[in-house]
This record gives sequence, structure tokens and C-alpha cells, in this order.
Amino acid sequence: MDYRIEKDTLGEMKVPADKYWGAQTQRSKQNFPIGGEKMPVEVVRAFAILKKSAAKANNDLGLLDKQKADAIGHAADQIISGKLDGHFPLVVWQTGSGTQSNMNVNEVIAYVGTEWLKKQGSDVTLHPNDDVNKSQSSNDTYPTAMHIAFVLKLEDHVLPAVKTLKDTMNEKMEAFQEVVKIGRTHLQDATPLTLGQEISGWHRMLEKSETMITASLDYVRDLAIGGTAVGTGLNAHPNFSEAVTKAIIDETGKTFRSAPNKFHALTSHDDTVQVHGALKGLAADLMKIANDVRWLASGPRSGIGEISIPANEPGSSIMPGKVNPTQPEAVTMAAAQVMGNDATIGFAASQGNFELNVFKPVIAYNFLQSCQLLADCMLSFDERCVKGLEPELEQIEKYLRDSLMLVTALNPHIGYENAAKIAKKAFEDGTKLKEAAVELELLTEEEFEKYVNPKDMTYPK
Amino acid sequence: MDYRIEKDTLGEMKVPADKYWGAQTQRSKQNFPIGGEKMPVEVVRAFAILKKSAAKANNDLGLLDKQKADAIGHAADQIISGKLDGHFPLVVWQTGSGTQSNMNVNEVIAYVGTEWLKKQGSDVTLHPNDDVNKSQSSNDTYPTAMHIAFVLKLEDHVLPAVKTLKDTMNEKMEAFQEVVKIGRTHLQDATPLTLGQEISGWHRMLEKSETMITASLDYVRDLAIGGTAVGTGLNAHPNFSEAVTKAIIDETGKTFRSAPNKFHALTSHDDTVQVHGALKGLAADLMKIANDVRWLASGPRSGIGEISIPANEPGSSIMPGKVNPTQPEAVTMAAAQVMGNDATIGFAASQGNFELNVFKPVIAYNFLQSCQLLADCMLSFDERCVKGLEPELEQIEKYLRDSLMLVTALNPHIGYENAAKIAKKAFEDGTKLKEAAVELELLTEEEFEKYVNPKDMTYPK
Amino acid sequence: MDYRIEKDTLGEMKVPADKYWGAQTQRSKQNFPIGGEKMPVEVVRAFAILKKSAAKANNDLGLLDKQKADAIGHAADQIISGKLDGHFPLVVWQTGSGTQSNMNVNEVIAYVGTEWLKKQGSDVTLHPNDDVNKSQSSNDTYPTAMHIAFVLKLEDHVLPAVKTLKDTMNEKMEAFQEVVKIGRTHLQDATPLTLGQEISGWHRMLEKSETMITASLDYVRDLAIGGTAVGTGLNAHPNFSEAVTKAIIDETGKTFRSAPNKFHALTSHDDTVQVHGALKGLAADLMKIANDVRWLASGPRSGIGEISIPANEPGSSIMPGKVNPTQPEAVTMAAAQVMGNDATIGFAASQGNFELNVFKPVIAYNFLQSCQLLADCMLSFDERCVKGLEPELEQIEKYLRDSLMLVTALNPHIGYENAAKIAKKAFEDGTKLKEAAVELELLTEEEFEKYVNPKDMTYPK
Amino acid sequence: MDYRIEKDTLGEMKVPADKYWGAQTQRSKQNFPIGGEKMPVEVVRAFAILKKSAAKANNDLGLLDKQKADAIGHAADQIISGKLDGHFPLVVWQTGSGTQSNMNVNEVIAYVGTEWLKKQGSDVTLHPNDDVNKSQSSNDTYPTAMHIAFVLKLEDHVLPAVKTLKDTMNEKMEAFQEVVKIGRTHLQDATPLTLGQEISGWHRMLEKSETMITASLDYVRDLAIGGTAVGTGLNAHPNFSEAVTKAIIDETGKTFRSAPNKFHALTSHDDTVQVHGALKGLAADLMKIANDVRWLASGPRSGIGEISIPANEPGSSIMPGKVNPTQPEAVTMAAAQVMGNDATIGFAASQGNFELNVFKPVIAYNFLQSCQLLADCMLSFDERCVKGLEPELEQIEKYLRDSLMLVTALNPHIGYENAAKIAKKAFEDGTKLKEAAVELELLTEEEFEKYVNPKDMTYPK
Repeated sequence: MDYRIEKDTLGEMKVPADKYWGAQTQRSKQNFPIGGEKMPVEVVRAFAILKKSAAKANNDLGLLDKQKADAIGHAADQIISGKLDGHFPLVVWQTGSGTQSNMNVNEVIAYVGTEWLKKQGSDVTLHPNDDVNKSQSSNDTYPTAMHIAFVLKLEDHVLPAVKTLKDTMNEKMEAFQEVVKIGRTHLQDATPLTLGQEISGWHRMLEKSETMITASLDYVRDLAIGGTAVGTGLNAHPNFSEAVTKAIIDETGKTFRSAPNKFHALTSHDDTVQVHGALKGLAADLMKIANDVRWLASGPRSGIGEISIPANEPGSSIMPGKVNPTQPEAVTMAAAQVMGNDATIGFAASQGNFELNVFKPVIAYNFLQSCQLLADCMLSFDERCVKGLEPELEQIEKYLRDSLMLVTALNPHIGYENAAKIAKKAFEDGTKLKEAAVELELLTEEEFEKYVNPKDMTYPK
Repeated sequence: MDYRIEKDTLGEMKVPADKYWGAQTQRSKQNFPIGGEKMPVEVVRAFAILKKSAAKANNDLGLLDKQKADAIGHAADQIISGKLDGHFPLVVWQTGSGTQSNMNVNEVIAYVGTEWLKKQGSDVTLHPNDDVNKSQSSNDTYPTAMHIAFVLKLEDHVLPAVKTLKDTMNEKMEAFQEVVKIGRTHLQDATPLTLGQEISGWHRMLEKSETMITASLDYVRDLAIGGTAVGTGLNAHPNFSEAVTKAIIDETGKTFRSAPNKFHALTSHDDTVQVHGALKGLAADLMKIANDVRWLASGPRSGIGEISIPANEPGSSIMPGKVNPTQPEAVTMAAAQVMGNDATIGFAASQGNFELNVFKPVIAYNFLQSCQLLADCMLSFDERCVKGLEPELEQIEKYLRDSLMLVTALNPHIGYENAAKIAKKAFEDGTKLKEAAVELELLTEEEFEKYVNPKDMTYPK
Repeated sequence: MDYRIEKDTLGEMKVPADKYWGAQTQRSKQNFPIGGEKMPVEVVRAFAILKKSAAKANNDLGLLDKQKADAIGHAADQIISGKLDGHFPLVVWQTGSGTQSNMNVNEVIAYVGTEWLKKQGSDVTLHPNDDVNKSQSSNDTYPTAMHIAFVLKLEDHVLPAVKTLKDTMNEKMEAFQEVVKIGRTHLQDATPLTLGQEISGWHRMLEKSETMITASLDYVRDLAIGGTAVGTGLNAHPNFSEAVTKAIIDETGKTFRSAPNKFHALTSHDDTVQVHGALKGLAADLMKIANDVRWLASGPRSGIGEISIPANEPGSSIMPGKVNPTQPEAVTMAAAQVMGNDATIGFAASQGNFELNVFKPVIAYNFLQSCQLLADCMLSFDERCVKGLEPELEQIEKYLRDSLMLVTALNPHIGYENAAKIAKKAFEDGTKLKEAAVELELLTEEEFEKYVNPKDMTYPK
Repeated sequence: MDYRIEKDTLGEMKVPADKYWGAQTQRSKQNFPIGGEKMPVEVVRAFAILKKSAAKANNDLGLLDKQKADAIGHAADQIISGKLDGHFPLVVWQTGSGTQSNMNVNEVIAYVGTEWLKKQGSDVTLHPNDDVNKSQSSNDTYPTAMHIAFVLKLEDHVLPAVKTLKDTMNEKMEAFQEVVKIGRTHLQDATPLTLGQEISGWHRMLEKSETMITASLDYVRDLAIGGTAVGTGLNAHPNFSEAVTKAIIDETGKTFRSAPNKFHALTSHDDTVQVHGALKGLAADLMKIANDVRWLASGPRSGIGEISIPANEPGSSIMPGKVNPTQPEAVTMAAAQVMGNDATIGFAASQGNFELNVFKPVIAYNFLQSCQLLADCMLSFDERCVKGLEPELEQIEKYLRDSLMLVTALNPHIGYENAAKIAKKAFEDGTKLKEAAVELELLTEEEFEKYVNPKDMTYPK
């Protein structure tokens, strides 16, 4: 293996010749042979956005010359584009401030920027700390990168996926607005509703989650940058935070704010807990929707069977011809993961001490995994399951015809207790409600038919 | 024991003569000898608010005569006042729709209202289902009562407690704004800040949580009422939901809305998950604050000892004279409870099927416990700990004087690597930074004194 | 209100005249107005067992005279019997070592014991610390009381309830061993099994949980007593721990051991986490069983309907005649609570520092709540649901007859792919498998009948 | 891109020419573009062990000819060796039975085995279902592979790591057995102990976790194999399960058993919940140990500073010379992850229905991640932190000398209340205990020196 020598304040390190990172990255790589979960690429790229913006701000404030700022910007752009993903080898399970990933970014930018300067004929070199990390600390940059990554992920990935699924639900809701079917509460037959109404509940779940995610993501628009080491802003210009924030807004096209209190920004992740709470609410809804879909599609002959969904693959390695609701299953497993991630994030957020919370990488990792899983599984579920969802009209009508809970429509006419007698008699005799009603002499056939009309039972009167 | 006979559609039941409940309550009492956790009194009282409002709405819509509506209102007022708390014996671990607690309220109101009518000389009787539950179902009333209870609890108990503690933090923040002290990150000495700044981080946590709770509680202002059995509104007047909501607003002085989609309102608790996420964020913050307080107060002679807090009780049954940070400990235990409650709520919210989620009582119980514990422990912590928090100036100054991390102020002047050399030398030699700096010939004594001034390091320049 | 004056090392306190507690209890009562959750009575009584045993050991070792030991024993017996429950007013949310509840017990015993001595004509008085707490600290007594309470609760309450439900499952398993029915995987029709076999899976869950709880509860038989303040045993006789443990064994008839390492015993709750892990396993199983029961009983006309369960109460306040699976619902809500309790316990157990973990009361509270809920709901579910569970043979046979998954029996004869063709054809044509098989000329009618026999498909051949 | 055509019962699929998988794998790859978390390699290799063993058992029972069994064994060996890792592209978020990963293994084995047969000059081909999956279903093979993977991971990775760290703790415990230091409870100064005793508590945590993991892993030695589709063993020989289990034992050298009830084995993961409970207990302990280490090492000048740990990397990107406890931080983040994984596993385990639990991949993924993280971080923590842990004797002695809690030794001589007076006076006057004692005339100087000896306070007398 080919190596070059890099050094930091603790001494020299051998770094693979084809890698752009430096001594501190190499040190972390060797010191943390734990798991295989890499620092999420979203964090790395958000760091690059931040470094480019910080260089611009430092230059604007007269603290960094234009040439260096350009070199940093150039290198950062390479990272943002994804071309340098292979140069960020560090795992989540490192120092809890993410210092080593900050230094990884600083080192790669210093290296790539210096090479670029060389190509321009300059012999200026970038220093990872003094130039790339200028006016910054890991303690303010890491949480800033987290928040940038969260906002991008939520706005560009999660919310569009919610919308896609919601829109399909809307189509289905409208398409099946007139399909009257039996309702079920406690898994027991209840009064009727339309399939469109049932789906409107799912639609509203997505809509409400969309609203809650959109509103709560606002809390992570606060950026820690400018707090430096402990929140005081030592070694940063008083205008630095605002200037960087402005540059980040320009770079991303997203809304951000300089956090009004940097001591909070370094030590608290209450905002992340809150946004992830909205994601957990969405996960709970998706669990419910996916369960409804697979129960309604259960069968083909010994289940509920009120809807059909696409058969995407052979369902069983032993049972020929079996088709399973695999898309809903992937959704429910993702939901289970989000539940656990939420526990990890809450735990981690509670463990700050003094001027820093050192559980940042594990928070970022879990948050971004939840985003990815929720978004991906909604899109897959939408495309491969919900779009193909169709009612099984014959089965739906059969259930509706037989239902005992239509008796509820009689309450206003004969009272709850008499209505109960009819339902009980029909259940015990195995007959229809009308027969029981007439036999009990509580209503005439005509009255029964006038009062009990499934379609009319699907809205207030 | 003295009994009377009551009946429901399943038959007769013996009810203690001095209790106002009826057959269904008695049945539930006997059928669920599980745990001892009663249906939270907040839910019972919210139910009474709802019943009174529903009676008013039914009367306004011409569906219930004035006399009956008044009787219901009278009985409901008794419940709201807390006088009838002893007549609600049911536990959380009953049917998952809370039907039995709805019937408990219906039965007590029917009984008390009928007695009241008798006293008025009337022989009209109230029927629990046909009158008190008119136009309603457990499936829409229980979640309505939950949301009423949540809004009242959050606005009248939790948020005022947050404010109280926040205000005290504000006082302390201002009082100690000039006390310069060492900062700590990773538990290791870091650059200085003022004690006021440190406390401002705690203040901001409370302020941000306050904002997040206030904003997210809006999602539980949506009321299910009007959905009746499955969300369709069967047996309710089309204007019933709006009319009841209006009456509830009048009764409580709080903001509520008729939920735009009742199918969602019966099956999803995404909004509750989201608000509890904000409470979990607050719990995480309180854990951090309480930990900081007890660590800063650790000692008296072998700890950090930068602050003192009140000695409220003898701390040890064996160690004489020991005083412990017991208020922070109660806070951290409450925070641990909220973390678990959040897991239960998320789990429960995900388990709906078709037209109903039947985990409502366990959600209500956990949510209201979190509210109670958070509010109570903030007030106690405020009164018995934070108000008496004082800096130990001698210790604070000693640490500051000795600190090696003041070296950070030299970065802009001599670069990170040279600054590191000074810190290292001072650490190894056990000397002050200045001596090391001068010995290394990196700065003169005058330069050092000019650049390194703890007070100046507490803000950006 | 009538008061008397009591004092501790911080000064005087007014105590209600009719209460036996002292100054420290009163102080805690006033200092912690948080929530309403009392220190579990199981912990209080376990403390009394411990105090009696410690007095005996101190007397045996010549450190406490017989008269005092007897007085302590007498008072402790009163507490154990439950007569003095009203004298333990403290809440869970107090100091995290449980010191105040230890002092509550010490004070009540000192008071009651001294009164008893007076009645004997003695003027000897018991001191809460010097006599009742002799050779002890809260730091070793509280975890000792926890473990005593846990073992008693698990052995005398939880395990008998598991056995009761398991035995009923065994009866049902045997009763329905020959009832062949359709199996379901992924909620989709699968190959057949007998109802007895299906129930045998539930039976095995209870049996395996029983084994796991029994085995893991052994880890909480280790007692901290003898460690005193920090684990070193300062102020205790070298033989004290063994002597107390022996006395506790005699008093309870249960197995206990002096913990081999007291530093662990004061700081770690790994054993409690592990036992509660077994309870969570049981909760997961009960969730599954309760869900199966309510799904199999779903209907009456639009669900699966393969079994019937008892109708214990009217199910709906609006739908007359509705009967719901309320016992399974209580079980699933209890299971949800246990999931959350497990999160709280894990969190709390991780937060020890140095010589003590100060989250003991919240751990005890959650652990004992899980025990109570699981035991109670198993007994209720057993009595009011499982005992009355019966197969609906007509429905079971109908499903079996129509099933497409019987095709699996053909794999060894015609291969998976040919079998799949038959299933697909029957599904698409809406016919029986046999017709499809013959039509596809893959088997003769005779061959089909020979190979496909539901009963024969319920065991390996 | 180069493709070949493969087919399954749903039709044809294009598969990359250089990949050994078949149509069903390809279908899953396209149908589940969710997240990036691959089916854990441990599960894939365990599947290969199972397939080889099943082929052997089928051959022994006369159901598969020797040539085919050898071909399957050959291909399985390639997978076990890790050479074919690139041929298992499926993610965790697929069907909840893991059917697609079972088919992935079946397809790769069929392909590689058939190629091998070709090379032997045979024209026999292996069928993924009829040969490789013979007598099996995904429903019994996936949980079997899970349990094989869990046992191997726990015995070969987790437990050795526990032992390594435990052994180092043992060395440290012995090395520092005589270093008397101040104890701390509630973060407040308490009575003394030795550093060796403090570490013995950590040692015992690892030892107890080791015992609990070892004992509880026994529950996952039960193998589902032989249950086939729904637990009945349809299409398997009555001796198949025992024969496969025997072959797996031979192949792995580990203990396994055929599960006594296959219906349980397909639907319940109570055993996995229980073992992971032991891992959570270990995580809680590691959290405590890592926190103790970093607090004891806090400083260098404004912390507790009783121990020093190795400086492995520059700690800060802004503060020169800062060294942080990064290894403990990685440990605590891993512990936070395990807490969340435990929540996911408990949730998933509770969601089985009828004859199958379809949350198997998410359970396997979380369980194996916990194992990997715990094992890796213990080894790293051991090597890079604990081995280099040394006492800072000067600081330790300073604290000890000043401590007020040495007063506890006076309890047996002058009583708790007098002892408290001494401590209080010394605290208020800022003096030593001895001076206060003498001044209060409670003891002479000689008596004080006789009774109060820190070293003597570290064991019972």
C-alpha cells in the first residue's frame, strides 16, 4: 500500500496515498473500529455547504483572502456534488461532538483546495484549522451541519414523499366515494361508511403529518454557527454568524436563522426531538394505514377480502401461488425502526453536560435513517401497492347486506334498548334485522326500510 | 352492604346504594380487576364539559327538551367541580375505546340529573344512552374528552410551570451575567463563559420548549365530536359538531375546532404523539438542566462546587451532615418516566384498526401523567432549588485562573499549532500558560496579557 | 389540625398527631408535591421485612439488645400485615436513593416500637437512625427492599398468573386438537393446522416466558444489604450481610443471597433490566395472543369469525347489541404500558454515577407496575375470555373447504412450479383446486384426493 | 449492462450477467428501493449453514440424492467463507418473513451448485425451491437462520469482548486495591473506598452481564426448522428437524435444539426480546462505566481529575491542546443505540398474527447491530482507554484529606446526631473534622484519630 505522511498536533500518521484526508481522520479511522455505520453522507455534504459559506463570510469580513475562500469553495463544491464520498471513511461511533468528521471535512477541503491552488499556479496552502475551520469549532459546526442536513432531507425527500402518497390517497378517496361498506370498530362489525370515507381518514393522516412536520421542522432552522467552542463566539467576528447563515440560505435556497442563543444550540436537541416526534406520529399513521390495507386485502378466501392489491412477487418459498402484502410489511418494519430511533434520539438528547451535548453523531444517524426509511417506503408503498388498490365489490356488498349494526339507525326512532333487542334476536336466530324487527313487533317492514338505508347512514342528517 | 338494582341490555346488576353509577359501570368494575390506575380525573371532568355542551347543542337543535338539557348541565357541573370524583371507579385497563368510562359519565349524569328533576317536582327521567349520550358515541366522545383534557392540562398546568421556571432562570441569568467562569465540553476544561450565559442556555431550553408545546398543542384542538360510531356522524344532526364545539369553547374559554375529518379523529393519535414529542423534548432539557445543576453543585469538597443550592433535608440515613441535590433527582426521575411514556404512546398510537384505535385510555393516562409530573417537578425544582442557586465565587475564580484553554484566544495571533504547543507545555510542566508561552518564545508577557483576557473571551470580537 | 413536633438534624417539623412518621418524612412530604404515585406498598413492606431481619441480625451479633430488636420486629410485623399502609405518604418522585422512604420506615418503626415498649412498661426509646437503621444505609437498604419486593411479586403474583393462563391454554389445546382449520401467514391463507396446534403456540409462549422469568429472577436474589453507604460495609459487622440475608430467607421462605459485590449492588440494575426484559417478552407474547383472539373472534358477520368468546358487557354506547373483545383490549393496553416501562427502566438503569444509582424509586415503580398489570390482566383474560373460547365449526369448515393453499401438499408430487399453476388457475377462475388440477391435466381426480387431505397436512410425514 | 433472463412463477426477469442470484432476488431488489441497510451478512451466512445442513439431512433421509446434496454443500461453503457476499443485494425492508432473502440464498446456491455440477461433468441442475429449499419454508428457515446467527455472534463476538474488558478491569482492580479515595453518592462526597473497589463494581457489572447473556442466549438455541409453512411440518419428514439440527451442530460446533413447539418458533420472538434485554443491561452498565471513567478523568484543572486516561487524538478543532474522553463517548453513543434497538425489537416481537410474525428482518437487523456495536466498542474502549487508566494520586489524596464524610465512622461512638453536628460545624467553618470535633467537645484528638482512619473505613469491622 502506498502512503504519505501527514501530521497533527499529536504527531505523524501514515495516510493512504490516494486519499485526501489527513492525520486526524486517519487517527479516528484507526481509533474507532466500531460497527460499520458511516457518518451519514447528508451530514458530510451539509458540512461542505457550511465550509463554503463560512469561507465566504470570513472573506466578506476581511478575515480570509479571496484566493483561499475560492479554493475552499471549489473543494466544498466537489464534496457537495458527491464526487468525493469515498474520502469520508469515519463511523458514527467516534467522538460525540463529531470533531473528527469536522476535521475530516477540513482536511479534505484543505487538501483538495491546495491542489487546486497549485493548478492555478499558486503556492498558497490551506490549513485545516486556521483556514478551513476559521472562526469555527466542531461544537458549532457539527450541529449546524445536522440542521442543514435535516432541513434538506425533510423538505426535499420526506415531505415530497408524503405528498405523493397523500395525492394517491386523494385519488382513491374520490374514486371510491360511493362504495358503501361495513365499518369496523374493535374489529367487530359496526355501522357503514364508504370506502372513500375510510381512505379519507388515511389521507387526513398524511395531511396532518405533513402539516406537523412542516411546522416543527421550523425549529431546526436555527443554526449554531457563530457559537464556536462553548457558545460565546470566541475567535469569531460578531457578524460572522449572520453572514454565514446568509450564505447558507443563498447556497441552499432554504430558510435558516442564526440561533438566538448559542449556548442552547450547542447543548440542546429539543428541536430535533420535537421534529422526530412528528416523524414518529407519521410512522404511527403509516403503521395503521399499512395494517388496514393488509387486513382489508386479507384472504383470498379466508380473510376480509374487501380490497385487492397488486401481486408483486411470489409470496412463499413453499406455498405455490401465494401472494403476500409485502409492501405494507416493509412499511410496518420501517415504522418499527422509527419507534426505536425515537427512543435513541430522546435518550441522547437528554445527556448533555455543561457547554456541550456529546451524542450528536448518534442523533444525526438515527434522525436521517428515519427520514430515509419513511420517505423511501412511502414512495414504494405508493407506487407498488396503493396505486393498484381496488375494491372487491361483491365481498363488500355481501358484508353490508348481512350486517347487524345497521340497527343503529333505529335508535332515534325506537330507542337504544329496543334496537338492542332486535340486534340480539337477529344474531341469535341467524336472521336479518328486518325479520327480527317485524317479529318483535317493534316496526313494520315499511318503517324498517324507510329508516335503515346503508347509504343514508354514511353522513349526518 | 346496601345495594340497588340497575340494568342494562345484558341484564341486572347490583350497585352500591350510595353510588350514582349504573349497571354498565358496575359491570366494568367487576370485569376489570386490573392494576389500580383510575381513569384520570382530567378525562372524567372533560367528559362532563362535553356532556353539558352536547346537551346544550341537542337542545339548540331541537333534539332534546330544555328541562332535560338543564338537568344534564346541572349534573355535569357537579362533576366538573370535583364533588363527584368518588363516583368514577373505573380503571384505565378496560375496553380500549373508553366506552365504559363514557357510560360511567352517562350513568352518573342520568342519575344525578334525574334526582335533580325529582327535586324540581318533575317525574321526567334521563336515559344514559338516549338522553345523555344523544347524538354521540364513545368513539367520538372519548377522543373529544382526551383533547379537552390535554388542552386544559397543557395550558393551565404545564405551560404556567414552564413559565415560572423560565422566569426564575431569567432572573438568575441576569444576576450572574458578569460572573466569568470556565466552560466545559466533553467534561473537559474549555474556554470561559459567564455563569449568566450558561444559565441563558437553560433559559432558552425552557423558552424553546414553551414555543414548541404551545405550537404543537394546537393539533389537539381538533375535536372528534360529531363523528359518532365510525366517523360518519350517523344519528347526529349535521350541525351538531359545530354546535357542541362552540359550547365547549364557551364553557372552557379555550380554543377548539371541530376536526375536519372525523375518520382521522377516531383512528389516529398522530397529534398526541407530536405534542408528547414536545414534552419529551422538554424532559430531555430538564434532564440536562438538572444534571448541570447537581454537577455544578457537586462537592462540597471533592466535586466541582461552582454553585451552591439549598439544603432541604438530611441527605443520608448513615452519613451525618450530608446534603444531596434531591430536587434535581426528582426532576431526572420524572424525565425518565416521560421517556417511557413516550414509547407507550407511540406504540399505542400505531395500533389502530379500521374505524377505531382502541388504545385510547392508555394514551390518555400516559399523556396526563407526563403533564402532571413535568409541571409539578418544574414548580418544585423552581421553588426549592433554582431560586436558591448561588455562585461559589472563590472556586469559580480558582478554576478560571488555572485554566489551560484560555490558550484558544491565541489562535488568531499565533495559529492553532503554536497555541497547542503552549497548552501542552503548561500541562506537562504544571505551570501557567503565560510562563509556557514566554518560555517557548512565542509571545512576550505583554502580548500574552493583551490577548488573553477571560472576560473578553466571553463574546465575539 | 392536630400536630406534634418532631425533629431531625435540620430542625423541627410539625407532624399530624395521628400519624406515626417523623420529621424527615414530613419534610419529604412537603418538599416533593409531585404527581400522586406513592412509593409502591410492596417496597414499603419489603423494607419492613428487611428492618425486622436487620434487627435480628444486629441482636445476634451483639450490637442491639433483645428488647429493642423485639420492638423493631413487632412494629415491622404491623407494617408487613398492611395495617399501617396509611403511614407511608411519600411519592416516587423524591430523592433518587429512596432515602426518604427508608427514613419513613425507620421513623414509623421507631414510633410504633417505642409505643409498644411503653406498653410493656419500658422507657427505652428507639432511634430511627441509631437503632432501626443500625448497620445500614439507604444506599444498601433501598435496593435490598427492591429485590425482596421483586422476588415476592414475581413468585407470588406474576408466575402463578402465567401458570393459570397456561393451564387454561393447555385445556383448550387438548379440547380442540382435532379441529382442522386454515392457517394464515402474512394475513393470507396458508396451509392448514388444527385449532389445538394454533393454541399450542400460545401455550408455549406462556411456558417459555415462565421459564425465562423464573430463570432471570434469580439475578435479583442478590441483596445489597451489608454494603452500607458506598459498598464498603462501613459501620456494619463483617457477618452482618449474611446474617440479615439468612433472616430474610427465614421470614419470606424465598431464596436470597448476599450480593457478592456490593459496589455493583448499589450502582447497577442490570439484573432488573434483564428480568424486565423477560416481562417485556411476555408482554409481546400477550399482545400477539390477545390480537389473535380478537381477530379470530372478529365479526360477527364481516370478520374472520372462527371462534366465539364471552359477551361480558354491552360494547357500544351507540350501536345496540354490539359486543366487543374487551378483555383482549385490556391485555393489549397493559402490554403497551410494559413496553414503555421497559424504556424507562433501561434509561434509569444507565444513569448511575460513582457509588450510587439515584433512579431507584422510578425503577421500582415501573417494575412493580408491569408485574401488577401483567398478572392482573392475565387472570382477568383467563377468567373472562379464554375459558369461554369456543370454535365456530361451520365457519372453520367453510374456509378450509375453499382454501387454495392446500395445493402445497402437491409440491413433492408435481413440483413447486406446477403446483403454483394450479393455485393460480383456481384463483383466477374462482374454482376449487381439484377442478383446476384436473383441467390442467397435472393430476387425476383420484391422485388429487389421495394427496390433498387437510387433516394429513397438519403433521410431517 | 450485460443481462441474462431468469424466471419464477410470476414470469421473466433480467438479472446482471455477473450475479448469481435469480428472478425472485431481482424482483425484490427492484420492488424495495428502501434505505440502504442490507440483510446482515451474519444472517446470509447462517442461511448457508442451514441450507448445507438441510441438504445433508434430506440426503440422509433418502429425499435428495448425494450429488445434489454435495453441490448444495459446496455452494453453501462458498457463502459461509464470505466469497459470495456480493451476491446478496437485498435490504432489510422487504417482506417481513424474509422470504426474499431465503430465495436469494436458494437461488445463489442453485446457480453456484449447478455450475459446480457442470464442472464435474454432470448435467443435473439444482432447483431453488424443489432442491435447495426442500422440506423447508421461509417461515421456518428465516427464524432458524436468525437463531444460528445470534448464537454465533454472541458466543464468538460479544462474550469474548465482555471477557476482554472484564479481564482488564480485573487487572486494574488488583493494581489499585490499596488506593484509598473518596466515595461519591448523589455526586456528593461520601465515605471512602479504594479505587480497586470502585473498579470491582465495574468488573462485577461485566461479570454479571456475561452470566446473564450466557444464560439467556440458551433460549435462542431452539430452532424453528421442521415447522415449514405454518408450524405443522407439512412436506417435511418427521425426522427432518432433528437431522438438520444435528448437522448444524456438527457444522458450527455450537449447541442447538429443535424447538419443542414450531408454532411458537414461527410466531414468537420472546426469546430474542429476553436476550436483547441482557444486552440492554450490558449497555446500561457500559453507560455507567464510561460515564464514571470520563467524570473521574475530567479536568485537567477544573474537574475531578482522580484518574488519567490516554490522549488518543487532538480533541478540538478550535481549542489547542485539548484532549477529550473520546472512547467513553463512543461507548455511550453505542449504548444509546442499543436502548433504541431494544424498543424496536420489543415492538416488532409483539406484532405477530396467526401463524407468523412478519417483522423478522427488522428484529435480526437490530439485534445484530446491537451485538456488533457492543462488542466493537468494548474492545476499542479496552484497548485505547481502560488499559491506560492510571490514578492521579496527588488529587486523590487531597480530596480524601479534606472530606467531611469521614465523620460517618463516628456514628457507632457518638451517635448519628452528634456526628452530624461535627460535620456541619466543619463545613460552616471551613475547617477539618478533627478541629470541629474537639471544639464541640464531643471527642478528644486522640479518640478522633483512633476512630477516623480512611483506610479502615473501606471494609466492615
